[in-house]
Amino acid sequence: MASMAVLFTKTPYPTQSLNKIANTHFAPTRKVSLSLSFGRKAHRRLRVSSALIEPDGGKLVELLVDEPLRDLKKSEALSLPRIMLSKIDLQWVHVLSEGWASPLRGFMRESEFLQTLHFNALRLEDGSVVNMSVPIVLAIDDSQKHRIGESTQVALFDSENNPVAILKDIEIYKHPKEERIARTWGTNAPGLPYADEAITNAGNWLIGGELEVIAPIKYHDGLDRFRLSPVELRAEFTRRNADAVFAFQLRNPVHNGHALLMTDTRHRLLEMGYKNPILLLHPLGGYTKADDVPLSWRMKQHEKVLEDGVLDPETTVVSIFPSPMHYAGPTEVQWHAKARINAGANFYIVGRDPAGMGHPVEKRDLYDADHGKKVLSMAPGLERLNILPFKVAAYDRTQGKMAFFDPSRPQDFLFISGTKMRTLAKNKENPPDGFMCPGGWKVLVDYYDSLVPESNVKVAEAVPA
Amino acid sequence: MASMAVLFTKTPYPTQSLNKIANTHFAPTRKVSLSLSFGRKAHRRLRVSSALIEPDGGKLVELLVDEPLRDLKKSEALSLPRIMLSKIDLQWVHVLSEGWASPLRGFMRESEFLQTLHFNALRLEDGSVVNMSVPIVLAIDDSQKHRIGESTQVALFDSENNPVAILKDIEIYKHPKEERIARTWGTNAPGLPYADEAITNAGNWLIGGELEVIAPIKYHDGLDRFRLSPVELRAEFTRRNADAVFAFQLRNPVHNGHALLMTDTRHRLLEMGYKNPILLLHPLGGYTKADDVPLSWRMKQHEKVLEDGVLDPETTVVSIFPSPMHYAGPTEVQWHAKARINAGANFYIVGRDPAGMGHPVEKRDLYDADHGKKVLSMAPGLERLNILPFKVAAYDRTQGKMAFFDPSRPQDFLFISGTKMRTLAKNKENPPDGFMCPGGWKVLVDYYDSLVPESNVKVAEAVPA
Repeated sequence: MASMAVLFTKTPYPTQSLNKIANTHFAPTRKVSLSLSFGRKAHRRLRVSSALIEPDGGKLVELLVDEPLRDLKKSEALSLPRIMLSKIDLQWVHVLSEGWASPLRGFMRESEFLQTLHFNALRLEDGSVVNMSVPIVLAIDDSQKHRIGESTQVALFDSENNPVAILKDIEIYKHPKEERIARTWGTNAPGLPYADEAITNAGNWLIGGELEVIAPIKYHDGLDRFRLSPVELRAEFTRRNADAVFAFQLRNPVHNGHALLMTDTRHRLLEMGYKNPILLLHPLGGYTKADDVPLSWRMKQHEKVLEDGVLDPETTVVSIFPSPMHYAGPTEVQWHAKARINAGANFYIVGRDPAGMGHPVEKRDLYDADHGKKVLSMAPGLERLNILPFKVAAYDRTQGKMAFFDPSRPQDFLFISGTKMRTLAKNKENPPDGFMCPGGWKVLVDYYDSLVPESNVKVAEAVPA
Repeated sequence: MASMAVLFTKTPYPTQSLNKIANTHFAPTRKVSLSLSFGRKAHRRLRVSSALIEPDGGKLVELLVDEPLRDLKKSEALSLPRIMLSKIDLQWVHVLSEGWASPLRGFMRESEFLQTLHFNALRLEDGSVVNMSVPIVLAIDDSQKHRIGESTQVALFDSENNPVAILKDIEIYKHPKEERIARTWGTNAPGLPYADEAITNAGNWLIGGELEVIAPIKYHDGLDRFRLSPVELRAEFTRRNADAVFAFQLRNPVHNGHALLMTDTRHRLLEMGYKNPILLLHPLGGYTKADDVPLSWRMKQHEKVLEDGVLDPETTVVSIFPSPMHYAGPTEVQWHAKARINAGANFYIVGRDPAGMGHPVEKRDLYDADHGKKVLSMAPGLERLNILPFKVAAYDRTQGKMAFFDPSRPQDFLFISGTKMRTLAKNKENPPDGFMCPGGWKVLVDYYDSLVPESNVKVAEAVPA
């Protein structure tokens, strides 16, 4: 697991709540974001607009049925063989529908699945290559396959039996689960969260095809307004006259180490000559494992971080990335980066052991902590993306504050691991001064509090044997 | 495991022994093959020469020390930290030394290893991509790493303590065995032959670097004359005025199904307009699993096949491919194809379940039988190679002879599996008429006979429960 760098930075920015940002800086719907008026900045916008990185395949895929046709498609769906989607399946429909996986136009066919497993990339008809490291597939079982019979299309339904999408021109092929897991995670060890949740007990067949999504995917959890699509994000970056967009993927609370890194990155981009680099702070919103902090609590925490002025709302866009989490390390970090290209980011910050976790069986990290950034920097189809390796930060005892780690004097620095941080929050203890803004820390304490009604029980910290 | 197609073909070609071919058509040493006189065909040669496919990276790598410098390098090797090579390690030194893995210039460094595991391809400095699907790495253990200390080069010694090579500008990095196996084979199931033999008990470190090989690798098993290097093969194809070279990888005895396929391929290439397609019949000569027929017996069998006129010696080059066998299916078939590009082949015949085997634990094939050819046809860096999918042949009862399988009348055809074939040979029974030339079959019977001194014992055929 990535050890968390501890550090502190003074916060020169005005405070502003995430809600306010959402109302003033976020584009609430696609239509509005596309019709935003740029006024006096129009000529700058044109220059900047062309600076946004091109989506994979040249054109952002959108798989939503046009509004006037939705009722028709809904009726059509009701007449087709049905596949019931799991929560994770629905998240992938969301991902596909908005073009995060451009140029994919639906669940993978076998040729796309095999290229993903073996090459982490898809070759397009024009010979060009786009990155695609994680299989985006839909599993069905024998009885579903039987029910589909000779039909060339099927309807996808959510757990409340609402029609979500039609999958056209379908292709059914074998689901080689063991091989899929081994090639995606580099291990067949039991206990991989995503495999346990979505593969091992899934059907023995995969069904690929082209998606027609009947209506935008919504979760009605109070957070839909933060789920900006790539089109909406691109419009927002354009509206802000971004000439560089740097993405920060996260699935954990933001601490001051992250914040220092992000503000430092902006300064570095300014030094490189960019006039207006915009940060895409992009928490993952899909499936996460049971011991991760849930999305709703993380969003509260991120809100406090912006309120407390740790990050500048003027140059930060906070949005939710709808993908489920694989915890597949070097394989998955490519997906995280590739999806952000489609959202308009041309810089990607990569940390230590991205998308990593502890080995599910052995007492070690599943991945070498440096492989993620190395693999990302060599990945086919990501040549256009600028990879920004994470600088390590820690508490500098000589200065009495947090700073970037100086390898020439390692004895001066103190690190705090994620495990340590969680133990502190569970025990309602305070972290070292400056680890996290007080408001953000309180959210974390509240979260663990909500888990343990008998909250007087102290959580013992693991002591190495 | 690939089921073996049974078929028969009339053999219109004159008989000639493999020894004679070796003496008359093979180039016994590199020097001779490079100085072959082309006489009256010189102008044709020039045209044809340019038709041979370019090696990966544009230039065939050769890592042999020039003859005058060999004694010097030998003394140098004696002064360096030593690594003792296993048999398989030595086979890889052989492979690397002759440029089969061009543009690799030695055992992989970490960046090459990671690209191989994740992308099955290496990106070169000019941005171009070559295929590389199987890690070619050298493992060392903690004590060897300790002995190497700060040295920037090491000497590689064979099992008889002779210096074989110097590895320069070394890089030592972790050997992630579980991940290497999972990503190469698509499984961590115990019982993968190559993993058991060369990975699981190997050291926890890998050492990469540039090779200087002191002298050509020889095995002194009477078969060295068949081990033509890519340079020698290219010279031979040029000498024969080949305008197409089609490679057939095998690690099993040649039966008439293979032979029909190979002669049929030649006819198809002639129909395509090629004037002189040459077959590279290229048995794998490195490590194979215990129940495969050993190289020496296979070469005897191949000799009989040419003697009996099943293949035409005039348009066939029989040579040994020095690589060890991984049994890694779709991953390995790419290596088999890529290495043959370096040897000058621009057509590659791929069969059902190439480089496959039974799952080591479950009762099924390890790989989907069609994945190999699909993955091969999509593999990065192999775009220049023409993939020729294997046509399936079987005994046609209506004609009373072997023919290509006709899916419109499956009931007319009879298949014989490899297991069935081995059982027959072990029991000294005859296969169906026309399965294999009689001389070749006798070699197979003799081989199994040599394994069982008490050869009266009948081998019971496995009966499905």
